[in-house]
Amino acid sequence: MLTSLIPAFYYGEDVMPVIYSSALTLFIGLFIVLITRNYKKKDIGKREGYLIVALTWVIISVFGALPFMFSGSIPSFTDAFFETISGFTTTGASILTDIESVPKSILFWRALTHWIGGMGIIVLTVAILPVLGIGGMQLLIAEMPGITPDKLHPRITATAKRFWGIYVLLTIMEIIFLWAGEMGLFDSVCHAFATMATGGFSTKNNSIAGFSPYTQYVITFFMILAGMNFTLHYFTFHGKFKKVFKNEEFNAYLFIILVVTLIITVGLVLTESFNVEKAFRDSVFTVASIITTTGFVTADYITWPVFLWIFVVVLMFIGGSAGSTGGGVKIIRHLLLLKNSWLELKRTIHPFAVIPVKYGGKAISQQIIFNVMAFFLIYILIFSGGVIAMAVLGMDFETSVGASIASLGNIGPGIGGVGPVENYAFIPPLGKWILSFLMLLGRLELFTVLLIFSPAFWKR
Amino acid sequence: MLTSLIPAFYYGEDVMPVIYSSALTLFIGLFIVLITRNYKKKDIGKREGYLIVALTWVIISVFGALPFMFSGSIPSFTDAFFETISGFTTTGASILTDIESVPKSILFWRALTHWIGGMGIIVLTVAILPVLGIGGMQLLIAEMPGITPDKLHPRITATAKRFWGIYVLLTIMEIIFLWAGEMGLFDSVCHAFATMATGGFSTKNNSIAGFSPYTQYVITFFMILAGMNFTLHYFTFHGKFKKVFKNEEFNAYLFIILVVTLIITVGLVLTESFNVEKAFRDSVFTVASIITTTGFVTADYITWPVFLWIFVVVLMFIGGSAGSTGGGVKIIRHLLLLKNSWLELKRTIHPFAVIPVKYGGKAISQQIIFNVMAFFLIYILIFSGGVIAMAVLGMDFETSVGASIASLGNIGPGIGGVGPVENYAFIPPLGKWILSFLMLLGRLELFTVLLIFSPAFWKR
Repeated sequence: MLTSLIPAFYYGEDVMPVIYSSALTLFIGLFIVLITRNYKKKDIGKREGYLIVALTWVIISVFGALPFMFSGSIPSFTDAFFETISGFTTTGASILTDIESVPKSILFWRALTHWIGGMGIIVLTVAILPVLGIGGMQLLIAEMPGITPDKLHPRITATAKRFWGIYVLLTIMEIIFLWAGEMGLFDSVCHAFATMATGGFSTKNNSIAGFSPYTQYVITFFMILAGMNFTLHYFTFHGKFKKVFKNEEFNAYLFIILVVTLIITVGLVLTESFNVEKAFRDSVFTVASIITTTGFVTADYITWPVFLWIFVVVLMFIGGSAGSTGGGVKIIRHLLLLKNSWLELKRTIHPFAVIPVKYGGKAISQQIIFNVMAFFLIYILIFSGGVIAMAVLGMDFETSVGASIASLGNIGPGIGGVGPVENYAFIPPLGKWILSFLMLLGRLELFTVLLIFSPAFWKR
Repeated sequence: MLTSLIPAFYYGEDVMPVIYSSALTLFIGLFIVLITRNYKKKDIGKREGYLIVALTWVIISVFGALPFMFSGSIPSFTDAFFETISGFTTTGASILTDIESVPKSILFWRALTHWIGGMGIIVLTVAILPVLGIGGMQLLIAEMPGITPDKLHPRITATAKRFWGIYVLLTIMEIIFLWAGEMGLFDSVCHAFATMATGGFSTKNNSIAGFSPYTQYVITFFMILAGMNFTLHYFTFHGKFKKVFKNEEFNAYLFIILVVTLIITVGLVLTESFNVEKAFRDSVFTVASIITTTGFVTADYITWPVFLWIFVVVLMFIGGSAGSTGGGVKIIRHLLLLKNSWLELKRTIHPFAVIPVKYGGKAISQQIIFNVMAFFLIYILIFSGGVIAMAVLGMDFETSVGASIASLGNIGPGIGGVGPVENYAFIPPLGKWILSFLMLLGRLELFTVLLIFSPAFWKR
């Protein structure tokens, strides 16, 4: 939080909001350390892991809201909490109606919440504080419950450091590329934070729409990188390109981006008589922004014909790759579900044959498929609950659908009243709390948060 | 088809459309019997069963369309096929813009398609023609793939007869109750056919809205009966009430109807200032009509506030009970999915414990849960495909969602442009064929139809 002092000093802004917020956070933190220092240190178990992770995300969002409130940019606690958890969960849904009037130090903090949340607060902690020992593993599982357990080998500190290393490197690369264009250093840093975290907070009222084609293509490229499994970046840096291009999820990811971009490009040229470059740029940007759950905007896609933006809605339900900073259901889950559905037909004809789902040449255990199916069903259930809640709060059908999936999928812009050029300011306080909860559920991939609400969790 | 001659003679209408249609159907049928009589009769296997059932439903819809075409009521084959398969699958989506101008003999045939399709064409054949022997079992499984295998004991002829007996009895009861009100015999018979089959075709342009409260309550009551598992009616007739009220699916069914009716009643009284009786009547009718997938209409629910009709949309995804004439996902599947999702949380904490889903006091095998999950996922996938197809054909978002679920769920009325007081006439021919396919998929519960399109099906 203190790093926000740099832009505050540089632009000659009031430094007190940042100082007050940091001091309050520090004192309360020290106080908690003091009153708990007599407890015996035990290894962190499964349950404690889930509880610590879920609470950590809530607590940092409470303290992270302080700079918004102390600076007067967002006076209401509900709004400030919404903006902060939207930042940390890399959703990028904003309640700000005039972003450009907010002090730069606060906009920097806003972008930083994305960047911290993108790679994961716990991953950061594990990378920095090796004192957690084996307990850190439990925390990592609770924060990154994705289905790539092979990356979580015992040397988790090394893994966490490696992931953060790649993350920092890619962020610096993007800053340089953006700075080389028309963006100043401040905007370059903020937008690079928001891109690599697949967040979507911009420092401009009209997001990326006002920037040059060069800048838009750079951001498109880095959004696509951010939506990839970071293990693949590790392979790339080590020259193992074969491993990257043999990855099923990565191929599916590129395939979806290509196909949907093509459909929308052709559609925009034919129906809106855009020139080809503009049509391609708007569609590839939108497709990359939505599938990676970033949520940057260059085009108001809901003004396109329904048969074009319906594909954008479909992307909202797909999400990025496992092991990326992107949210959503994730491509690997869809791959496993599609393969399994297809095989279920085979199983109907051959009820006694054991036909396992294969991924990357290996048979996937029933248990994982079972878990993925349960995940998707709960996801649909919670999405539907979100739609009902928004409708009950008075929103129309499209807005309800948009707000629910844009929050749960950590995307940001949805459809209807929360479309790409709208914001979340008009939503009643209760609605903001519900959407905040959906963001958290989405970021921690449902189970970690839901577990805490199950009686089984509290039974010994 | 020939029974349509009765209203034709009684009302002095042209009998030739019905005679031509019946004659053509008979001659082609006899021709097929003749050219195939030299084939050796073998027992019907799994594959043949699926193929026969799926083709039967398509073929009867082709021949069933003849009376509409010969009478000139629906000149286009696409439209007539749509109307007929909508009848047989008990969807009740209509392309007729002026129902009351159609000859009564044709309206009778239209209602009869519901009634034949409701209990199942194969079930009827098995009940009437015991010659099918053990092969009939395969056909029944393909037509009624629901998850109540216990009812399919070897004496299937007896079971099929028993189901049809209950069906006939309840239909006669409803005819009497309706006739006792202001409806004439003709309207009573047609509406009873459409109710007990959970179809939804009315003989009036404004469906049930113009009838008295008495008639509306009678239809509500019989819709609820039609959406129950027919095994429970069998128990009721034998005085085994305990068995009925201990049935988990039935309890969930009543619970959902009660809760949603209550919510909408209160909502209508508060927001639309309806009197309590009218609000209750409209809501219980709509709730029963949609959850049972009948699709009769007394109120234009999409003019209600969104936060009330959103619950109607939720009901569209629920559907009737297994072993009922209702369509949709079915309540038992939702029960199993909800229980399993809940247990999946438990399994996350206790990864090595075997925690089976229990239903009716018995543990349900993994395989069934797996199948139910795959069913639901494919259902959502096909629903989404339907939404995309409708949007690509130029419909708006709500209409696309409405047409897709109303067809796949065999409901009839949806939301948007295919709302309760609209019809399907405006949909382009390709859209009508796609929706017809969705109706068939929904009626045969996906797998039977999908299997035929899988390469595994055709491999020996």
